[in-house]
Amino acid sequence: MISNSIIYIVLAASILALAFAFIFYKQMMKQDEGTDLMKKIAAHVRKGAMAYLKQQYKVVIIVFIILAAIFGIMAYFKLQNGVVWFAFLTGGFFSGLAGFFGMKTATYASARTANATRKSLNSGLQVAFRSGAVMGLVVVGLALLDVSVWFLVLNGTGLLEAVGAENDLITITTTMLTFGMGASTQALFARVGGGIYTKAADVGADLVGKTEYNIPEDDPRNPATIADNVGDNVGDVAGMGADLYESYAGSILATMALGASAFATAAVEGMQFKAVLAPMLIAAVGVLLSLIGIFLVRTKENAGMKELLGALSRGTNTAAILIAAATFGIMYFLFGKETGEYANMWWQTSLSVVVGLLAGVIIGKATEYYTSQSYKPTQKVAESSKTGPATVIISGLGLGMLSTAIPVVTVGVAIVLAYLCANGFNIEFTAANLSRGLYGIGIAAVGMLSTLGITLATDAYGPIADNAGGNAEMSGLEPEVRKRTDALDALGNTTAATGKGFAIGSAALTALALLASYVEEIKIALIRIGQDLPNGVEAAKATLVDFMEAYNVNLMNPVVLVGVFIGAMMAFVFCGMTMNAVGRAAQKMVEEVRRQFSTIKGILQGEAEPDYERCVAISTKGAQHEMLVPSILAILVPILTGVILGVPGVLGLLIGGLATGFVLAVFMANSGGAWDNAKKYVEEGNFGGKGSENHKATVVGDTVGDPFKDTSGPSLNILIKLMSMVSIVMAGLTVTCHLL
Amino acid sequence: MISNSIIYIVLAASILALAFAFIFYKQMMKQDEGTDLMKKIAAHVRKGAMAYLKQQYKVVIIVFIILAAIFGIMAYFKLQNGVVWFAFLTGGFFSGLAGFFGMKTATYASARTANATRKSLNSGLQVAFRSGAVMGLVVVGLALLDVSVWFLVLNGTGLLEAVGAENDLITITTTMLTFGMGASTQALFARVGGGIYTKAADVGADLVGKTEYNIPEDDPRNPATIADNVGDNVGDVAGMGADLYESYAGSILATMALGASAFATAAVEGMQFKAVLAPMLIAAVGVLLSLIGIFLVRTKENAGMKELLGALSRGTNTAAILIAAATFGIMYFLFGKETGEYANMWWQTSLSVVVGLLAGVIIGKATEYYTSQSYKPTQKVAESSKTGPATVIISGLGLGMLSTAIPVVTVGVAIVLAYLCANGFNIEFTAANLSRGLYGIGIAAVGMLSTLGITLATDAYGPIADNAGGNAEMSGLEPEVRKRTDALDALGNTTAATGKGFAIGSAALTALALLASYVEEIKIALIRIGQDLPNGVEAAKATLVDFMEAYNVNLMNPVVLVGVFIGAMMAFVFCGMTMNAVGRAAQKMVEEVRRQFSTIKGILQGEAEPDYERCVAISTKGAQHEMLVPSILAILVPILTGVILGVPGVLGLLIGGLATGFVLAVFMANSGGAWDNAKKYVEEGNFGGKGSENHKATVVGDTVGDPFKDTSGPSLNILIKLMSMVSIVMAGLTVTCHLL
Repeated sequence: MISNSIIYIVLAASILALAFAFIFYKQMMKQDEGTDLMKKIAAHVRKGAMAYLKQQYKVVIIVFIILAAIFGIMAYFKLQNGVVWFAFLTGGFFSGLAGFFGMKTATYASARTANATRKSLNSGLQVAFRSGAVMGLVVVGLALLDVSVWFLVLNGTGLLEAVGAENDLITITTTMLTFGMGASTQALFARVGGGIYTKAADVGADLVGKTEYNIPEDDPRNPATIADNVGDNVGDVAGMGADLYESYAGSILATMALGASAFATAAVEGMQFKAVLAPMLIAAVGVLLSLIGIFLVRTKENAGMKELLGALSRGTNTAAILIAAATFGIMYFLFGKETGEYANMWWQTSLSVVVGLLAGVIIGKATEYYTSQSYKPTQKVAESSKTGPATVIISGLGLGMLSTAIPVVTVGVAIVLAYLCANGFNIEFTAANLSRGLYGIGIAAVGMLSTLGITLATDAYGPIADNAGGNAEMSGLEPEVRKRTDALDALGNTTAATGKGFAIGSAALTALALLASYVEEIKIALIRIGQDLPNGVEAAKATLVDFMEAYNVNLMNPVVLVGVFIGAMMAFVFCGMTMNAVGRAAQKMVEEVRRQFSTIKGILQGEAEPDYERCVAISTKGAQHEMLVPSILAILVPILTGVILGVPGVLGLLIGGLATGFVLAVFMANSGGAWDNAKKYVEEGNFGGKGSENHKATVVGDTVGDPFKDTSGPSLNILIKLMSMVSIVMAGLTVTCHLL
Repeated sequence: MISNSIIYIVLAASILALAFAFIFYKQMMKQDEGTDLMKKIAAHVRKGAMAYLKQQYKVVIIVFIILAAIFGIMAYFKLQNGVVWFAFLTGGFFSGLAGFFGMKTATYASARTANATRKSLNSGLQVAFRSGAVMGLVVVGLALLDVSVWFLVLNGTGLLEAVGAENDLITITTTMLTFGMGASTQALFARVGGGIYTKAADVGADLVGKTEYNIPEDDPRNPATIADNVGDNVGDVAGMGADLYESYAGSILATMALGASAFATAAVEGMQFKAVLAPMLIAAVGVLLSLIGIFLVRTKENAGMKELLGALSRGTNTAAILIAAATFGIMYFLFGKETGEYANMWWQTSLSVVVGLLAGVIIGKATEYYTSQSYKPTQKVAESSKTGPATVIISGLGLGMLSTAIPVVTVGVAIVLAYLCANGFNIEFTAANLSRGLYGIGIAAVGMLSTLGITLATDAYGPIADNAGGNAEMSGLEPEVRKRTDALDALGNTTAATGKGFAIGSAALTALALLASYVEEIKIALIRIGQDLPNGVEAAKATLVDFMEAYNVNLMNPVVLVGVFIGAMMAFVFCGMTMNAVGRAAQKMVEEVRRQFSTIKGILQGEAEPDYERCVAISTKGAQHEMLVPSILAILVPILTGVILGVPGVLGLLIGGLATGFVLAVFMANSGGAWDNAKKYVEEGNFGGKGSENHKATVVGDTVGDPFKDTSGPSLNILIKLMSMVSIVMAGLTVTCHLL
């Protein structure tokens, strides 16, 4: 009844997304770019951004070639199948492409947004939001394209058999997971490199310009100002694009793999295939709903802030509610006719998605509560500026640490509920219940990310508005324009909270799903080399629970515990490295800006032009130089852990990294967000207002928060999943050779 | 051959420790307290400190009565045995007593140290160090007293049978663990309350006095200065005393319990009893070696810094080397005659101790490297002051995060090696190998802490020297005295690094040992209520591995994973609470100090005396008020987790809390230490020296570091173990009633 041809729906959805992205892009390009000065500044930023991306991809390509070669060698030694190296490359390629398109759009859109904002707030929103939507749609379009084409190829042709692998759905889906590793690797480099770039430029520009010379943000006299605007594009746009591509693709791929294994032995024919289809179909329908949401974001021409906020919220909320409803439809279409043990599966699994969506909303609201200056916590951070920068830092750190409670408890409850919903509320811990429950957790993550087309649009238009403001400032437009772009940016921060809640929550759930995929890959590796489990159970017939017992993956095994310790440490060490990288790169920028201020005559009077290029080059070089070590560490540690500690050590590592990394990421993101908005709160005229000592104290907080919320924090989500992906790809090595 | 009477050796060692503590105390009291002003100031501080302790104990007694009542009720419902409530009280009582004696000594010693320092550096060291030794010896003496007397009572009389419990070694040792919970509870209150007190006063005094009014540290014109000095006593002396009492007693008790269970079914008679004896005997011998070490700390009267450092190092190093050698002797005495499977046990288990000691030394050296201004990392933090306070904070946080790598890897390697040494290098994961390996991990922790008598002395004399400096400053002694006390304090920081390494490492190992004790307690609870394991295995015959399988404590169980998440979160939330508590209490102090400066006429000219009492009262009240919520949370969360998630959830919670808490604690301690010393490095004349903008930037770092290194960081070690202890005591409740 349901055949392989249904995949063409997914393929069609991906093409639809890309087509609309193209249309929105063309619409944006038709807008007027404004004055000559505006065009010139935009061209500067665009050139710098493209130069950076080119440089970045050069480095990343080398890493990819080396890794692909390693996978090729592994395939030769039967430690991996022969499709992996290529799947890995495509994942990285499409992820990079999404970042490239997103950034190209953003750099063309900034001057046009500034120009449109001269007319009205609404016009500005339309240009910026539609440009953000290009990014959202490109990400989901390319991801679905890669997923659907690979599935068609692997499931339809004998490719896997040709390279000597099995040709069943489990092998197909776990092979496809390696394209997830390509996306994760690309995402980590993009986030870390872009994050270091943007924060080095930002911190450097602020420390000298704002603090030492008292000139405003984005002032053309500041030599680092172009680099700062380039940074917003390479960090917040290209970095975020690659990041969410990875999350989106990762959740779909992991859930497909879980579906393949959970229903591998189902007595009902076609169950396994339908379970693999479900996440793809939810994502495909999500594309349609995202488009509906995007078109709902429109108001009257003279709309004020409140109407605009309403319009944005209407778009995202409608998409979220519709996807919950649509999931029931999709699940009924797939499983509605089942009887016996699967009779209730359609609505039970759908409930898992509802659980996930609710969790995302709660995390989003909590994030908003802790980081918006409309609420007490951030106001208290602002108030602590009365006693200087030290207390601003202490209270911001305290706030961030406390703010982890709600997201973690919410995710915990969501895990248990999504699990129980999907396995029919069966507490008993059996292999079958476990597999179905884990599948429910995966589906919940897919549901949360399925409307990424619009949620990413609300996220990505922020940096575009921000850049438009920079352009307006530098090209001397009336201050009203800057005020409006700031308002647009602030608007985005509010609506983006839900999107961030979904991203954080789904990352945790996806990482959990990847744990199960890791065990599945261990199984495939054993079958490939013809070995049984250590306790003699035949690999092909072993369940997840058998693996836990055979490899002693329990909490009394010291090897597991050591793995957990190392995982927890990895999260901290990785953050420490990226924090220090920002510090070092910013230091160089500070020195250069100081040098220019003191050696270029007339620079402060606006009579001489600063050497923008040099600051751009410093950021580019600094980011390239600094991103390598932490990124390579993230790839090496899981491999080394596997070779030394074996399977139980790797699973410990992944759990330790996931738990600590998740909490640390929430802490850093929220501390950083609160510091940012505490500064804004003071700037709004509270506790002495702009220019006061209190304001200076909050600027210190904001500067510390920059790497927190834009470099180290967001990279953690990728780190967690990349470590899982690496472990999955390296499973063949781990089972054949390990010390303990 | 080896009978119960050998316990009298342990009892004798404890009395020896207490006797020498008394002698050193009397010697110190014989010294001259100096001028009348010195006496008056010392009396002020003493009064404030005692008033605080009295207030603190009042609150803690209420908590203890409530908890003891709960244990009584649990005993009535057969959820716990009838000795527990009383054992719990004695643990808390002795821990509090150790803090009280230590603080009493310290507050009497400060003026005497200042006075002796007027004569020579060496005289000052002698008074301060011997006073620190009082604390060290009181802690080990009282702990061994409690352990040995309880063991004599429980093993020699029919007390346990009288309350309806079994009278075997497993029940005896796990019952004794509850006295560990008393010590942990007391320690948490002491650390959190004392930590908030001292940092509120310190931060408050610094922010207004140093930063706003530019008056030096410990200046008598500063109203918060007495509170600051009181804080050093209640935080660094009483808090640390209770903390290390808990670590020391906890490691011995946990290892005794592990020994009882590992050798419960040993075919050789007396093995179990000897395994229980071993940790007590190592600790008893450690007392002797500590005394030898303490007496080795002496030099010529006119000794310089280098000689003094040599003397201190000689003391601690000799004790550490001797305990390694002595362990082989003790183990040979106990197990040297064994044959068959236990033939090599004596030297194999001894090797575990050597592993532990080496790990402690490595962690200590790494701590020194990352936090001393003699090395690059801290110097770089100081250098980053050139670009202001924000970069000082960023680089300090980066340093702290990176610095977690060596301690975590070291502990990981130590866990594996101590485990493998103790079970005869047997990788195979069997119940017998596991139990013996865990026993080895416990013994390693005991070895690391066995010379606490001297390592604590090198730690505790720092605050005494610090207070002596304060006394010298306030009573207007010649500046040379202050310089010497500062030198003594700095000296202590260097030698204390090893002690801290031992404390951190042993805490991680002990917490691991407590995990196994938790499972053992589950077993006892099942036997008490006459239930089998969920999978039908008879409780009395079940091994650790059986429990893991019966309760599904593996990494695929979502309940375990949710537990790990919550554990990781607990570490952060607890730190957030204590950070915020310090912030709030400091805020109140700042307001009061500002008020006094502006309303008391002539205060800045030194013509009018500030109202010291009021600042003392504010700190006392703030600390009392703020310590309750985080401490009670630490007790409630494990109970709630048990009731909701059951046994696998609790084990997840403990692992998550241990891994994240351990890494977070190292991060916070090292960041805080580095900021402190970066400030000192600038004060030594680097990067502009005292009074420069750079110096001000490092003062911001130091202020943020205060709660890091003296409140939140050190409390984490206790939190980890308290959560384990609570879970152990509540095991009966968890197995009989839980939701999932």
